[in-house]
Amino acid sequence: MSFKERAAIVGIGETDYVRGSDRSATEMMLEAARAAIADAGLTPSEIDGLIPPPVYTTAEELAANLGLEDLRYSITVHMGGASPTASLQSAALALTHGIARNVLILIGWNGYSALRPRAGVNRRRELAGISSMTTAVRDFYLPYGAISPAQFYAWIAMRHMKLYGTKPEDMGAVAIACRKHAQLNPRAVMRGKTLSMEQYLQARWITEPFRLYDCCLETDGACAVVVTSSERARNLPHRPVLIMGVAEGHPYPADDIAGRPDMFKTGLSYAAPKAFAMAGIQPQDVDFLQIYDCFTYVVLLQLEALGLCQPGEAGAFVRDGQIEIGGQYPLNTHGGLLSQGHAWGLNHVVEATRQLRGDAGAAQIADAELGLVTGWGDFGDGSIVILRR
Amino acid sequence: MSFKERAAIVGIGETDYVRGSDRSATEMMLEAARAAIADAGLTPSEIDGLIPPPVYTTAEELAANLGLEDLRYSITVHMGGASPTASLQSAALALTHGIARNVLILIGWNGYSALRPRAGVNRRRELAGISSMTTAVRDFYLPYGAISPAQFYAWIAMRHMKLYGTKPEDMGAVAIACRKHAQLNPRAVMRGKTLSMEQYLQARWITEPFRLYDCCLETDGACAVVVTSSERARNLPHRPVLIMGVAEGHPYPADDIAGRPDMFKTGLSYAAPKAFAMAGIQPQDVDFLQIYDCFTYVVLLQLEALGLCQPGEAGAFVRDGQIEIGGQYPLNTHGGLLSQGHAWGLNHVVEATRQLRGDAGAAQIADAELGLVTGWGDFGDGSIVILRR
Repeated sequence: MSFKERAAIVGIGETDYVRGSDRSATEMMLEAARAAIADAGLTPSEIDGLIPPPVYTTAEELAANLGLEDLRYSITVHMGGASPTASLQSAALALTHGIARNVLILIGWNGYSALRPRAGVNRRRELAGISSMTTAVRDFYLPYGAISPAQFYAWIAMRHMKLYGTKPEDMGAVAIACRKHAQLNPRAVMRGKTLSMEQYLQARWITEPFRLYDCCLETDGACAVVVTSSERARNLPHRPVLIMGVAEGHPYPADDIAGRPDMFKTGLSYAAPKAFAMAGIQPQDVDFLQIYDCFTYVVLLQLEALGLCQPGEAGAFVRDGQIEIGGQYPLNTHGGLLSQGHAWGLNHVVEATRQLRGDAGAAQIADAELGLVTGWGDFGDGSIVILRR
Repeated sequence: MSFKERAAIVGIGETDYVRGSDRSATEMMLEAARAAIADAGLTPSEIDGLIPPPVYTTAEELAANLGLEDLRYSITVHMGGASPTASLQSAALALTHGIARNVLILIGWNGYSALRPRAGVNRRRELAGISSMTTAVRDFYLPYGAISPAQFYAWIAMRHMKLYGTKPEDMGAVAIACRKHAQLNPRAVMRGKTLSMEQYLQARWITEPFRLYDCCLETDGACAVVVTSSERARNLPHRPVLIMGVAEGHPYPADDIAGRPDMFKTGLSYAAPKAFAMAGIQPQDVDFLQIYDCFTYVVLLQLEALGLCQPGEAGAFVRDGQIEIGGQYPLNTHGGLLSQGHAWGLNHVVEATRQLRGDAGAAQIADAELGLVTGWGDFGDGSIVILRR
């Protein structure tokens, strides 16, 4: 019994991505949610499924503020940046069985304003949750002085460089592609700020081998998508974007990068074959890639996990403009977390939907029919969705 | 496309319920999980779906410690005490579609040791999560000095008494039935401590109209169940317990008791008709009831929401031993949260499974074929599962 193409994305919404907001995460999520519901041609009372982030707000708070009178289904995915894409799996399951009729997935946070004190910005007290970033950092990494994701992922990136000869310029190619695409996107924080390879290489170290432009933006903002059954989707305003294949995966051991027999075998290595089998397509068939880009190197690793290139060959894969618009595998056509803004990758789902509707403006990929979105979270949890217009 | 009876509970496990533990919630959950997996006749590596509680631990931490090498599915339900039963819905959906082959649902906490300082008990620092109990209490109730669930639910109970003439003795009948049943259960914290109506009525106030014995126990402990597809269940050691009907519901507004047009219309009022329709049975058909019993009055409210009696008539329903073993609707045959122990109601699912296997010992209901379990969480989120042997 397959749920392939039984559900479709029919509404998208997002706030501006900004550095410094005077609004709470919940307020921003409500704005994005109302925009997504309106975009779907629905009213809030027609939403009866909610997948909120595991932090900052609750389904109950959102339901009360949106006016959802019959919330029939709510779950949460705790996979960090892999959560939005994995949430599409649960939404599709619930819709296939009529557990809910219209499911709203959302994420919002003050990723800039709340996480650390900054001059001129009131530090916001956001309610925290728990993830493997909480428990594993406490148990395994803090004792060694490693306290931020840039440090944890630097270990894997360094190993990849030593083993396969991956170059700084390869990571730079990802940063530059995202930055180029951001120039085409009025919603991108980095619009108007170009980036050359020289600038990339001259930027300061964050933690070796990551330079400044290897690291994603920290922004405040929110994103939302509405998913419904494929049948109902036909009667709604926009061309439905069908969920053709979807899967999640967790590496082993899931909570300890350093304990893995193969550091490069992450959640996406497990998830991708399942999603492609469900969709019945090959990785090479997709018209664009929206790849979770918390760090440039994490993009390289995922290109290998997807099977778009062999292990160790991602560096060669991203050269010569292949991942830029006009190349064979345009990647993060909105600018990504690196140059648009950081909404845990739900903005990648929003961009994929725009592309498949033909609404991506200057970044539009001609005749885009099949798109792929990945999520990456915590210590390599992975998720993938294959979307078809 | 129905998922009725496509999934079955095949393994159960629990720790002792104790007042004062030197173990973390995660350690206790691992014990319960290993017991449930063994009971199912499976090995840990066969578990590929995890629904942990939204607090205290993560799927990644549990997977790593259990040795789950291919975790394919993990979500979390944020409905407080309604979570365990609602989790069965997501497990059944994932199993129906092969997203996972064997799903482990678990909960464990130091509900006694961690929540408040006590003489002679080291206060444990457990990692906290977020629920509507966090946000709504902060927003709506703390300003009025109401800080604990006993206070919030006292408002509804008091209104019910005024409106319908519900008597203290009616709430007492629930406490006494649970206590009687605990005498039959070697795992019950209150085994050996009987309770008479006179003792019940003479107990001190906690918050009017709740006396001491209207309030559930605070215990440390953990519980786990393994769910698999009905096909695979046939080849496992125990008689499968089929998920015949399941649903969740959220009242409106979900986060504010005082703002509801009808205080007595809670999540279960929405969920119960859906679960009975899915199962194709009437409420009166079940052989026993395991009803979430954080407070005695909450049981009365749910009996009405289930349609076992008319609004306002739950008091009459529980009189004359009808909810005791030997009566028509034996309730909380393990002693419940009131007299066995508090594992967020997952212990109710464990007990229902024992009853339907015929393994409930001195508390066994003869020829039990159909059982019902409810969950109640936060401010009236509700869930229900109907199980068939």
